[in-house]
Amino acid sequence: MEMNIALLPGDGIGPEVIAQAVKVVHAVGKKFGHQITFKEAITGAAAIDAVGHPYPEETHQVCLQSDAVLFGAIGDPRFDNDPSAKVRPEQGLLEMRKRLGLFSNVRPTFTFPSLVHKSPLKRDRIEGTDLVFLRELTGGIYFGEPRGRNEQGTKAFDTCMYSVEEIERLARMGFEFAQKRRKLLTCVDKANVLATSRLWRETVQRLAPEYPDVKVEYEFVDAVAMRLIQWPKAYDVLITENLFGDILTDEASVISGSMGLMPSASIGVKTKLFEPIHGSYPQAAGKNIANPLATILSASMMFEYAFGLMDEAKAISDAVNLSLEKGMVTEDLADGGTSYKTSEVGDWVAEQVGMA
Amino acid sequence: MEMNIALLPGDGIGPEVIAQAVKVVHAVGKKFGHQITFKEAITGAAAIDAVGHPYPEETHQVCLQSDAVLFGAIGDPRFDNDPSAKVRPEQGLLEMRKRLGLFSNVRPTFTFPSLVHKSPLKRDRIEGTDLVFLRELTGGIYFGEPRGRNEQGTKAFDTCMYSVEEIERLARMGFEFAQKRRKLLTCVDKANVLATSRLWRETVQRLAPEYPDVKVEYEFVDAVAMRLIQWPKAYDVLITENLFGDILTDEASVISGSMGLMPSASIGVKTKLFEPIHGSYPQAAGKNIANPLATILSASMMFEYAFGLMDEAKAISDAVNLSLEKGMVTEDLADGGTSYKTSEVGDWVAEQVGMA
Ligand SMILES: [Mg+2]
Ligand SMILES: [Mg+2]
Repeated sequence: MEMNIALLPGDGIGPEVIAQAVKVVHAVGKKFGHQITFKEAITGAAAIDAVGHPYPEETHQVCLQSDAVLFGAIGDPRFDNDPSAKVRPEQGLLEMRKRLGLFSNVRPTFTFPSLVHKSPLKRDRIEGTDLVFLRELTGGIYFGEPRGRNEQGTKAFDTCMYSVEEIERLARMGFEFAQKRRKLLTCVDKANVLATSRLWRETVQRLAPEYPDVKVEYEFVDAVAMRLIQWPKAYDVLITENLFGDILTDEASVISGSMGLMPSASIGVKTKLFEPIHGSYPQAAGKNIANPLATILSASMMFEYAFGLMDEAKAISDAVNLSLEKGMVTEDLADGGTSYKTSEVGDWVAEQVGMA
Repeated sequence: MEMNIALLPGDGIGPEVIAQAVKVVHAVGKKFGHQITFKEAITGAAAIDAVGHPYPEETHQVCLQSDAVLFGAIGDPRFDNDPSAKVRPEQGLLEMRKRLGLFSNVRPTFTFPSLVHKSPLKRDRIEGTDLVFLRELTGGIYFGEPRGRNEQGTKAFDTCMYSVEEIERLARMGFEFAQKRRKLLTCVDKANVLATSRLWRETVQRLAPEYPDVKVEYEFVDAVAMRLIQWPKAYDVLITENLFGDILTDEASVISGSMGLMPSASIGVKTKLFEPIHGSYPQAAGKNIANPLATILSASMMFEYAFGLMDEAKAISDAVNLSLEKGMVTEDLADGGTSYKTSEVGDWVAEQVGMA
């Protein structure tokens, strides 16, 4: 297969971890006979420094012309501590999501056999957890209008808003995910109180007969916040609106015991983007110590979700599990034992993919 | 001290568990020399059946004239399955909160030494957890206007709204709680995105200098959803808005390993109400098998928060801990061993309070 991949390393440790994912993707290409072309583009603080904008038009064009986007991280403390800054790196992320129409944030939660002991949760509760959240990413209370203050400044307000179309495209994606997995879909809402949640629930109920092989469950967001840490194995695919998803996907990331390893995807109308859930970790930038495995696992998700290539995806995740098992890890996972540099871990995983 | 307590048993197991709390409160009164008068009033399905309204005016007057309200539970499946029902028991709860001005829901999370093993979380993460949420209960997106649909029904919307006054009274209560505890206050918001959250944060920042002995931390709601199950011992008092509190207090209730035991308080401008967080559990109603300990612990909270009587509060919680330790428990906690009836557990705890 021919694949054109946009590379957006971003800020902080972004360039270092992206470099490791590139090695691994090349190894997959060689082993499975794919022709892979990377095209790099700037975002975040790096782009503000270069051209004054965190998501330049040129970068947008590179993304549009690619089959998938591999993204590192965005954010730089220079801007956090400068209230006068007019543009901020994070605005690049929001603009990118919006212009690429990335309406669905795909956040898997699974456990790594050799890291289960690091979870705050007990082994028997979490071992074998394999769930995925589809969080609506471009609607809801983070974007609704009106928002702001009354004239005197004594009242503030935000608006949560959803259209049937926004809900339907996310819900259909949820049904399709469930069909390819364990055929259980959970719609997470607060339909006993919120008008938007009732529209979510009605829409999902209307679509359900089109997917008779999928079992649909409806749960309130506060109940899911409990059950997620009590019985995470009870879930398969969960769909929810933006704010609920923001909270619950972070809560779910604790289950694995190693949030620093979790990949994610954002799927949209124009392209698909893959990135680690961790941030730009500026303190570690340039030191060759950052953990590249979440970005490498994001590349695994790319083969699965952008190209439907399950063997390629599995070759990467198997190699990552082996690196964890054998202790071929960066210092954050070394428990005081031998640790390896970012580039060494990348080399090892790429080599492993080639050998397997 | 003279105490007038309104008793609202409500529906389902409510009357049975309230009866046990009454025994224990009488035992406290006898031991510590307080004169306690109870006045019972109807709510929920029981009140709909009797007078057609789930929170009758007469009940409201009883609450207004009392120093504190002890509340059981509300809810009846007869109404859940009847879409034509015009009044529902749960409306009584909302109306009661509103008319009594119960703006702050106080939800402690702590562990029971003999039940720590039941938590899905590991012992070393949770042992000694002692935190309390103050959830704003009468504002935010559950009440804001406008809410509903557009004319075509293709869009739905909800409004989150907060005034400075609503935030300030809850925040001041949080500072005062922290002063009496470990002097750490965490303001939970989403101030990087929401206008209402920014008003929360500004208001708390403005008040902070008045409470120089309290350390204030600001955390985003999604970060708290993670840290709460990673490091619950890091928290003392948390204040937050209605929806965030709805989600996070339920998440926190999992920590103890025994949600069925958790008490709560709602503090308002006119009175203070104490109730278990569990529901009316209609399947168990009338069988003398329901666990009364959460309601008994709510009575303990009543002595602490309504009357400032710490020794009385501790006498009850010590007796509850002893009943758990000695296995004087209902069948839900008996792990297949010997179990006791609701009334037997109530008798035992009351007797224990008298003897201690
Ligand atoms: Mg989040
Ligand atoms: Mg709740």
